[in-house]
Amino acid sequence: MGMAKAVGIAMVGHAFMGRAHANAIRQVGHFFDLPFELVARVVVGRDTRRVEAARKQLGFVEASTDLAAVLARKDVQIIDIATPNDSHAEIALSALSAGKHVLCEKPLAMDLKQARSMASLAARKKVKVGLWHNYRRCPAASLGQRMIERGDIGEVRHVRAVYLQDWLSDPGAPASWRTRRATSGSGAHGDLNAHLIDMTHFLTGLSFEEVSAMDRTFVRRRQDEAGQVSDVDVDDAMAFLARLSGGAIGTFEATRMAPGRKNFNQIEVNGSEGSIRWNLEEMNELYLFRDDEPVDSQGSRRIMCTDANHPYAAHWWPDGHLLGYEHSFVHTLADFLDCLLSEKPFSPDFADGVRVQAVLDAVLESARTRTWIEVPS
Amino acid sequence: MGMAKAVGIAMVGHAFMGRAHANAIRQVGHFFDLPFELVARVVVGRDTRRVEAARKQLGFVEASTDLAAVLARKDVQIIDIATPNDSHAEIALSALSAGKHVLCEKPLAMDLKQARSMASLAARKKVKVGLWHNYRRCPAASLGQRMIERGDIGEVRHVRAVYLQDWLSDPGAPASWRTRRATSGSGAHGDLNAHLIDMTHFLTGLSFEEVSAMDRTFVRRRQDEAGQVSDVDVDDAMAFLARLSGGAIGTFEATRMAPGRKNFNQIEVNGSEGSIRWNLEEMNELYLFRDDEPVDSQGSRRIMCTDANHPYAAHWWPDGHLLGYEHSFVHTLADFLDCLLSEKPFSPDFADGVRVQAVLDAVLESARTRTWIEVPS
Amino acid sequence: MGMAKAVGIAMVGHAFMGRAHANAIRQVGHFFDLPFELVARVVVGRDTRRVEAARKQLGFVEASTDLAAVLARKDVQIIDIATPNDSHAEIALSALSAGKHVLCEKPLAMDLKQARSMASLAARKKVKVGLWHNYRRCPAASLGQRMIERGDIGEVRHVRAVYLQDWLSDPGAPASWRTRRATSGSGAHGDLNAHLIDMTHFLTGLSFEEVSAMDRTFVRRRQDEAGQVSDVDVDDAMAFLARLSGGAIGTFEATRMAPGRKNFNQIEVNGSEGSIRWNLEEMNELYLFRDDEPVDSQGSRRIMCTDANHPYAAHWWPDGHLLGYEHSFVHTLADFLDCLLSEKPFSPDFADGVRVQAVLDAVLESARTRTWIEVPS
Amino acid sequence: MGMAKAVGIAMVGHAFMGRAHANAIRQVGHFFDLPFELVARVVVGRDTRRVEAARKQLGFVEASTDLAAVLARKDVQIIDIATPNDSHAEIALSALSAGKHVLCEKPLAMDLKQARSMASLAARKKVKVGLWHNYRRCPAASLGQRMIERGDIGEVRHVRAVYLQDWLSDPGAPASWRTRRATSGSGAHGDLNAHLIDMTHFLTGLSFEEVSAMDRTFVRRRQDEAGQVSDVDVDDAMAFLARLSGGAIGTFEATRMAPGRKNFNQIEVNGSEGSIRWNLEEMNELYLFRDDEPVDSQGSRRIMCTDANHPYAAHWWPDGHLLGYEHSFVHTLADFLDCLLSEKPFSPDFADGVRVQAVLDAVLESARTRTWIEVPS
Repeated sequence: MGMAKAVGIAMVGHAFMGRAHANAIRQVGHFFDLPFELVARVVVGRDTRRVEAARKQLGFVEASTDLAAVLARKDVQIIDIATPNDSHAEIALSALSAGKHVLCEKPLAMDLKQARSMASLAARKKVKVGLWHNYRRCPAASLGQRMIERGDIGEVRHVRAVYLQDWLSDPGAPASWRTRRATSGSGAHGDLNAHLIDMTHFLTGLSFEEVSAMDRTFVRRRQDEAGQVSDVDVDDAMAFLARLSGGAIGTFEATRMAPGRKNFNQIEVNGSEGSIRWNLEEMNELYLFRDDEPVDSQGSRRIMCTDANHPYAAHWWPDGHLLGYEHSFVHTLADFLDCLLSEKPFSPDFADGVRVQAVLDAVLESARTRTWIEVPS
Repeated sequence: MGMAKAVGIAMVGHAFMGRAHANAIRQVGHFFDLPFELVARVVVGRDTRRVEAARKQLGFVEASTDLAAVLARKDVQIIDIATPNDSHAEIALSALSAGKHVLCEKPLAMDLKQARSMASLAARKKVKVGLWHNYRRCPAASLGQRMIERGDIGEVRHVRAVYLQDWLSDPGAPASWRTRRATSGSGAHGDLNAHLIDMTHFLTGLSFEEVSAMDRTFVRRRQDEAGQVSDVDVDDAMAFLARLSGGAIGTFEATRMAPGRKNFNQIEVNGSEGSIRWNLEEMNELYLFRDDEPVDSQGSRRIMCTDANHPYAAHWWPDGHLLGYEHSFVHTLADFLDCLLSEKPFSPDFADGVRVQAVLDAVLESARTRTWIEVPS
Repeated sequence: MGMAKAVGIAMVGHAFMGRAHANAIRQVGHFFDLPFELVARVVVGRDTRRVEAARKQLGFVEASTDLAAVLARKDVQIIDIATPNDSHAEIALSALSAGKHVLCEKPLAMDLKQARSMASLAARKKVKVGLWHNYRRCPAASLGQRMIERGDIGEVRHVRAVYLQDWLSDPGAPASWRTRRATSGSGAHGDLNAHLIDMTHFLTGLSFEEVSAMDRTFVRRRQDEAGQVSDVDVDDAMAFLARLSGGAIGTFEATRMAPGRKNFNQIEVNGSEGSIRWNLEEMNELYLFRDDEPVDSQGSRRIMCTDANHPYAAHWWPDGHLLGYEHSFVHTLADFLDCLLSEKPFSPDFADGVRVQAVLDAVLESARTRTWIEVPS
Repeated sequence: MGMAKAVGIAMVGHAFMGRAHANAIRQVGHFFDLPFELVARVVVGRDTRRVEAARKQLGFVEASTDLAAVLARKDVQIIDIATPNDSHAEIALSALSAGKHVLCEKPLAMDLKQARSMASLAARKKVKVGLWHNYRRCPAASLGQRMIERGDIGEVRHVRAVYLQDWLSDPGAPASWRTRRATSGSGAHGDLNAHLIDMTHFLTGLSFEEVSAMDRTFVRRRQDEAGQVSDVDVDDAMAFLARLSGGAIGTFEATRMAPGRKNFNQIEVNGSEGSIRWNLEEMNELYLFRDDEPVDSQGSRRIMCTDANHPYAAHWWPDGHLLGYEHSFVHTLADFLDCLLSEKPFSPDFADGVRVQAVLDAVLESARTRTWIEVPS
């Protein structure tokens, strides 16, 4: 396939997520055949000095503090949003209005209304939009989706998902924008449950019908790094029950207060004929159980998803060589670029983000009202 | 200590649970020093032929179908109840009225009212009563309790408990008394959540304040072994959220529809300074995480609880030799006998059974009414 | 099947192994259908007071210090040898001469010559003999044998076996008969490698052709419990390479100096089409890999061997309920009794013990001479 | 520190290893602070078309088929050797003669004599040399070395290392240069045992004193991809026993015939006070056991080595985010560059390669002569 042309990408934001996006931008062409050359054109930030340092470290051609100017450029076709949640909508709407393709860090928006406005504008534009729900494209998670889709475990009955971390377990851990509702919307919930919800959508194809939730803030006051003490007004933990379409049920829990759990993002799906289980802390492995094997030989199988037959794995190393966290971003970008100039749909897009946001909002409302809440479709 | 005298035990019921109790009765004196000789005096059943066969197989001196006559005997001091749930109350009340010590299979009763009447009578009698929540006395679970009590993990914040089985996953699995409400009260809930609730009480010392529950029956009609098709009117699965005393929160789930999970009874407790985790499928092992170790050396520790320093282990084999399911019954009986003629309290007793029943009932009501339900204290 | 008659058993020795044998004697009839009633007739020891205490604790009818008198009894048909290694031969030869069936603790003898004399006499008598290589009858190990025999993993190529313990790791651990060659023959080698060798014979059906060995004593002087310091003249560790029949190769290692390893008796067998792996520390589980599954679904399967379809499991509890160390003795005894009065051969018998002893001796000679040594057939 | 200047690197070879090296060259500056700018100046190959394609895919400025011309360039300071084993010596000697720094893929050479000539020339030049024993710099392996060095497990007694793969298990797997002695020197041995030997050196600081080895070729004839059948004259598997300095002992095994083992490169080290264990298939985790903890709490700890306190981890992502195979190459390069222009020694260098080669050769000789062989120092 000939290179149609070069496509330029501009990345807005350059903190943790920006570093992961930038890595994907640099790496994707070295491991995947792209339909065009991808150029890391501009990194956009607020502080001149810091954005220039980021440019150098992250490998962009230019740095800028003027988003409007970047949106006006002809040589930038994709806007990649790696900023905190509260600016996603504004940036995405501007980018869409400027006719750019948009890749946005998850969660899509601060609430359902905002998410819908973004999806609505995207639907009216002739551009591609995508969300960085990168865990979908860990090879083992992708393999789980393939198996469920081809019927390996039958009809889905149970989803059992937890996302456990421990970095706020210590009361001395500092307050930050993540512990204040005004800046973060919610705590563990929006940060971690968003992943569990999207993964459920991805793996099972089911939707959430109604939820009953419970939240908890264990440490109610924290000192920030400047020594100022403030109230923590977001959840440290949020658990919820869910009824899913087709009669399946699910349990979900996110917390930042589980000592010893670093990034324990685990999902188990039980079907009528088998089960799968995946966990980010062992991200290269998928566990599969099938009930159609000889009875004395049935067991849960640990599949190391590094074989050329596994999703994405052939692009990297020989069998048995592990991939890491950032590879999932490279895969996401590779697929997005593969769809960019074609009719192929890319998923998750903003409509998928709306579906996640609808569940996130319903859970928050359930926790607040202490009632079951229907998830709007 | 000298042997005061022989103490006779009569066991009512001789199915699965009866086999486990009888094994404990036969074995306890060979591995534990008892304050008296325990005599397996009578096994009581309904069918003359079958109870005689049980007597022989299980090692009792006599068989009987006349409970009243057994209760009248002077040489029977302990009544052990190993019958289905719906007869616990009647047998226990009669036995208590006859002045016997009573050991009762869990769950204590069919509902809270019944449970309270049993505990109330027990409290008025000068006898010892106990419940066979045997999992408390798996060495690893007992060790977990010891650690939490001595503060190894700080203040409890999270309880995360699941009891997963798969024997009803196949729609062809037959209907039985366990799939009919009239005979079983509930399905996975009463059978499995009872264990999770008691284990939470045991490990944490906390109580349940309120619950929000969701149940599900995936296979609504089953054929029994005689070929008759009937409705399944109990839950295949029951999940619930709980607020516990002291501000802790918990998630709980029981199911018989999780392919590949045979007896996955797992509980994780997160405290302010560490965590423990225990799972019946690896019953000899406890996982411990502590946050006070050198940072670069922190990790979740797999403790094989077979050392002489671990609860009960010194009574069996040298370090590294695993115990099995039935040992937990032997430990329960050993402790009960040790308390029997002394002032030492035995736990769990009927009051503990009432506490479990109160939670079980509240969960059922929550699932029915789709609201949060307070657990009566 | 009707009970032909009662069969009496006398057990010689009553320490750790005696406790495990006695447990099997008491339990076997409660869980297995025996072709006759087994009577725990006599326990035999050297010290009148201690053997009487053992009788009571272990559940025998009588105690005796006079083996000759016991051998002369008509109501004793089986002699069970649970004494230290250096007395196996003398007791077994006497018992065989007296026309008794003999069950002997492993290892069969102190050396190959002695073992051969025992097997030779057994072959001339119309009795059944057996060796307590109990690990063969852990359900998971038995399942592994079944799988290899039916070809599930193809032709055996590799055996990889280790038996790791840590109880002598501490230089302060006391000297005992186990640390002196005169009383124990060897150290970790005879104690632990004997299991690995027998398990290799059992699982693969292959024999050892030649070996190259290396031993090591890390702590050369120890104090015994009386405070006396003496030389340790047995191995703390013994590793060896082996060529097996049919072109397979094996690596073997036994040590008592591996901190954190309590009873890590693990064997992995790689065949031309798959692999199995078993470990005593997770004794209810077998790992199986097969290369004929869909490529994207291949993985090592953890089989919990507690289903009614697994060896021995149907005699105990429902699926998912673990068995412990001592159950393997019950299974051994059940099978032995099942063969006792029939034409069915029991394995392992003394000829099997000779095969193990031949390898043990060859390994010792190899370690001493630092050369490859052929194993006599 | 200011950027002294740009340093140019030329990479010779561009197959699997070249891809891993090139990735490190591209990535190192984005995650580590380098004392200078590293320029991926030239990739060198034999085929004009293929080397140009590699240049593009791997991100070099220029491509060349003329190594001599590259060695003559002033703007190339480092020669990175990523070719098959049989050309390492020639390229390295030329590069050293040209005054270049040299990084060489392992194993250093085809035999000890060759290795010594390389180390000897390197020692006479004022340049830095390094070997890509990348597994040393997996964070978990580096942490293990740190722990042993600071005495966390006491004095080393046992090393137990295996490197198990399964890609030649199928007799239909094609013959290649790897299955012919003329091109590969040996089979699994040189490829895999080289890693185990170097890791033993790295972790323990001990040296190999003597070895006893056994090799095996299970499939003696294979068809190559062109359909030609030839003899396999290298080992499919090589196991050996070793006596190490200070009285420690070790067992080692490499095979390509272990179904289900993809890249099972595991090493366990038992010391007098604890143990560590690491396995490439779970490369982010280190297992640690220490005997100085409270007895009832001792257990093997799984340490997820992704915390900022763990080696290298702070350069990447927040705690709990896994690294993959290729990160170990980035770390190796980062350390090499950090030493390049300073007095800091880099390890492993060619002298370390000589030590590995001496053991490899001794093992081959032992397998051939069936005797214990002393390893020359």
